[in-house]
Amino acid sequence: MMNIAVAQSGGPTCAINASLVGVFKESLKEASIDAIFGSVNGIEGIIQNHMINLKSMILTNDDMELLKQTPSTVLGSCRYKLPDWQEDEEVYRKITDTLKQRNIGAFFYIGGNDSMDTVNKLSEYFKNTGLDIKVIGIPKTIDNDLCITDHTPGFGSAAKYVATTMKEITRDSIVYSIPSVTIVEVMGRHAGWLTASTAVLHAMGETAPHLIYVPEVKFSLDNFLRDVRQELSKHKAVIVAVSEGIEVPDGVQSGLVDNFGHKYLSGIGKYLEDVVRNEIGCKVRSIELNVMQRCSSHLGSRTDIEESESIGAAGVRCALNGQTGRVMVFRRISDMPYTVSIDSADAGKIANQEKFLPKKFINSAGNNITDQALEYFLPLIQGELNLVMEHGIPKHFAIHESVLK
Amino acid sequence: MMNIAVAQSGGPTCAINASLVGVFKESLKEASIDAIFGSVNGIEGIIQNHMINLKSMILTNDDMELLKQTPSTVLGSCRYKLPDWQEDEEVYRKITDTLKQRNIGAFFYIGGNDSMDTVNKLSEYFKNTGLDIKVIGIPKTIDNDLCITDHTPGFGSAAKYVATTMKEITRDSIVYSIPSVTIVEVMGRHAGWLTASTAVLHAMGETAPHLIYVPEVKFSLDNFLRDVRQELSKHKAVIVAVSEGIEVPDGVQSGLVDNFGHKYLSGIGKYLEDVVRNEIGCKVRSIELNVMQRCSSHLGSRTDIEESESIGAAGVRCALNGQTGRVMVFRRISDMPYTVSIDSADAGKIANQEKFLPKKFINSAGNNITDQALEYFLPLIQGELNLVMEHGIPKHFAIHESVLK
Repeated sequence: MMNIAVAQSGGPTCAINASLVGVFKESLKEASIDAIFGSVNGIEGIIQNHMINLKSMILTNDDMELLKQTPSTVLGSCRYKLPDWQEDEEVYRKITDTLKQRNIGAFFYIGGNDSMDTVNKLSEYFKNTGLDIKVIGIPKTIDNDLCITDHTPGFGSAAKYVATTMKEITRDSIVYSIPSVTIVEVMGRHAGWLTASTAVLHAMGETAPHLIYVPEVKFSLDNFLRDVRQELSKHKAVIVAVSEGIEVPDGVQSGLVDNFGHKYLSGIGKYLEDVVRNEIGCKVRSIELNVMQRCSSHLGSRTDIEESESIGAAGVRCALNGQTGRVMVFRRISDMPYTVSIDSADAGKIANQEKFLPKKFINSAGNNITDQALEYFLPLIQGELNLVMEHGIPKHFAIHESVLK
Repeated sequence: MMNIAVAQSGGPTCAINASLVGVFKESLKEASIDAIFGSVNGIEGIIQNHMINLKSMILTNDDMELLKQTPSTVLGSCRYKLPDWQEDEEVYRKITDTLKQRNIGAFFYIGGNDSMDTVNKLSEYFKNTGLDIKVIGIPKTIDNDLCITDHTPGFGSAAKYVATTMKEITRDSIVYSIPSVTIVEVMGRHAGWLTASTAVLHAMGETAPHLIYVPEVKFSLDNFLRDVRQELSKHKAVIVAVSEGIEVPDGVQSGLVDNFGHKYLSGIGKYLEDVVRNEIGCKVRSIELNVMQRCSSHLGSRTDIEESESIGAAGVRCALNGQTGRVMVFRRISDMPYTVSIDSADAGKIANQEKFLPKKFINSAGNNITDQALEYFLPLIQGELNLVMEHGIPKHFAIHESVLK
């Protein structure tokens, strides 16, 4: 009999708790697994030996269903980068102490490409020190920028919210008789997956978004203004989707850098709004979808939530099969009917890597997304959750904040 | 046999098209009503004789159901203020020409308190010139600031979206181990109804929003900072809801003024974010719910949408009963079980007036909402729509933009 540990890391999504349910439920079935510990605030909880016995917290199937419609990370999160163990072993010793003390045989880390760095380093350390603790990564990110996997858990729900909201903003934008430009800023620092996914509206006969700018294409203000003028000659209300991460000449970037060395970007929508106002002079507004695009679980994609649970469960089977240093991935078998299988890949090949939009998804003018991309995006946003409501508002599963302190 | 005309005006909501359906469906039942004309871009369409035969546009019950889940104004909108007819009669003559030419016996105007000014002036003009054309106002506004009516169509859906999103933002905010403040800016220039409605989360056991600031209470930066510091001593992640319209000392207001003499306000959330960063120094972010709070029909309140349809239908019966210059209103019979009746009131008593939060809804410190207010708000956000989806996205009913040009 062994115990296991699970933790959540990185930016919130609508699907991280579904993957936690996947790990939890699959572990319950396994006679060889006894206690299931949840680490508070990602790897930080293991370093500080701050763990919760999940069996005393998640008591019923109803609890699990609520978790699946609860956004963000119920166990808290962190942005903690492990040092190389050859250079600084102290934190690795603390982690080992906690895991040994709690008799943990497998650790599941649900997170983005930075968290997969932790999976890679920890599994290498355990191999090198002869410790039999399996470390498995369960991917998540609304950015969809992980290598090898067809797509990432959390992306489908974010894409469904962003496309739906873009459609509603389109209805909102077209009401007045004067021409207008609406610029919608979508998350994505280096990869334009989420911004590009708004093109699914074209499959429903919408002409919006009329322009889509992603970081994969070098941005030119001159081309942007030419594009907007051209669309204004065709449409009364021009809708533009733009990734937060496109680079503009005189630097909107704040210059802040996070723990992983990422530039912290914001404000591109506001910047382009000012450009349109000054250069074209028409009615213009910008809208930042902000954290709503990663936490609006009331509009989760059923496909995404179910897959996120499945990939968590698959992670448990992978560890029980004796594997370690692996990240679970989706492989797409076909677009129509949409079929995926779950496999695993070497964490070292996923950690700290980014996957960008393929060229065939971007039109030749570099200002929109091709119809070919829709076959990729559409299956990921299908289906809705049967939400449990309370007083007219979706019910969530939450741990009391005093437990998480 | 007479024809009728209907138009939509003011800022979009999720319920204006439901009221249009109410007018349309009730008129179909009436043998005395022949053509049903939709005026494009509110009263502007009547001035310019730009009308659509709605029977050739809304063909089936399915079309009507789609309209009820389509946000914004399917016929376009305007912000046009009629002059006093004693001072400038020309535009009244144009309106009369269109209505006479099209044999229109009743005109239904779906809009906010500015549009009720149009209802009042037009009906007075027709009475004074001896024209037998009934003019009836159907209220709508997410601001809920119309007098006499218990609440306004469109408010319940906006409140449901804002409260749900506030709850999801709360989950998103609590994930990291460091203290943080999240400021959510909600629409409302002079009245704090929508901001106050976020207190419904307290009925679900949420401690958030921990602070709620509405324009009805004189805002003090010193008190705000004291409040935030106090909440930070109790909660790791402090959530603040703030009306866009609260007045701060050194004027965040842009100074722009719309056609109705309203100040155009924005940016209070960003302003307070800077204040917290500079004065308290903790992690802080601000979120503007922007137009999403008025157009997110994917999370419409069923109560709101059904009531909005009913009040449109009641407007038709009111006109057929020979009344004019009336605005349809809700009267609340009881909170539990929630019961309302539909009545009408003198447009002159509603036009250009605003209704503010009653004192009993605001706590004594002026920084939160009382539990007493919840009995008022909760019934308005109950129930969800059975959305018709297409490719994973809610389907809308839209008129081709070439028709609306």
